[in-house]
Amino acid sequence: MTRYFEDVEVGTTRECGRVEVDREEMVAFAERYDPQPIHVDEEAARDSVYGGLIASGWYTASLVARQLVTGFMNDLASLGGRGMDDIRWHQPVRAGDTLTVSIEVLDKEPSDRNPAVGDYRVEVVATNDEGEMALSMVGLGVVERREPNGAE
Amino acid sequence: MTRYFEDVEVGTTRECGRVEVDREEMVAFAERYDPQPIHVDEEAARDSVYGGLIASGWYTASLVARQLVTGFMNDLASLGGRGMDDIRWHQPVRAGDTLTVSIEVLDKEPSDRNPAVGDYRVEVVATNDEGEMALSMVGLGVVERREPNGAE
Repeated sequence: MTRYFEDVEVGTTRECGRVEVDREEMVAFAERYDPQPIHVDEEAARDSVYGGLIASGWYTASLVARQLVTGFMNDLASLGGRGMDDIRWHQPVRAGDTLTVSIEVLDKEPSDRNPAVGDYRVEVVATNDEGEMALSMVGLGVVERREPNGAE
Repeated sequence: MTRYFEDVEVGTTRECGRVEVDREEMVAFAERYDPQPIHVDEEAARDSVYGGLIASGWYTASLVARQLVTGFMNDLASLGGRGMDDIRWHQPVRAGDTLTVSIEVLDKEPSDRNPAVGDYRVEVVATNDEGEMALSMVGLGVVERREPNGAE
């Protein structure tokens, strides 16, 4: 059942599933979008402070975004996102790691741009196999209102 | 020539090149990482407020990140990024669009985590064919110091 702005509950938390980091995909992503030696050059990465290849932060964020979309946004009358705040890569992510993604709705408010929509913020956290926070970020989402002109 | 923390000049601006949005890549990216209907479902996108498929914001950010890496970071003794602030998708990006990427170094400071490195912030802007800002974001980078224990 599609959920609208009125149905979004501040404080809601949800588990959005787990995702394993595939080595081939991780490196291919970095070769295309983030060709830093630590992401694409095995030898340079081994000699770096990381001691081996680590995932591009954009790859990690994209993997996590998928869980946010499939585990939360796609049930909403979502109009997508306006942006992201405070992306932090807390721990290196490596091939074979499994990330567990969870979200919490931080707040929401009717849009002052458009009476038919509302804005919400959602905190997204990905935890690695050791239970450490690997990535955190805050998404700025837009969702349709069920009653565009009604008071909430 | 590799540039170190001491060489990073606050206020520096740089053009980091142009990148065209390829339809096939744009949709493939969204199918894998951001399967919202507006990014992957031609018909649903046509019926949406966007009137057609638009790029995943993560795809746009990743394309722009590549220009940041190849046009700025790879000349630095870079240790990668700690995160990103204030990502905003200002205008929809569509297949065939060309994005022009430019950066400005906002500030820098020696790290209080590690005397061998310094932090800098860089604003990244991507402009579309109409000269409108399509994406903006602020990168938090880490770079080696040439003289780890020296005063700057």
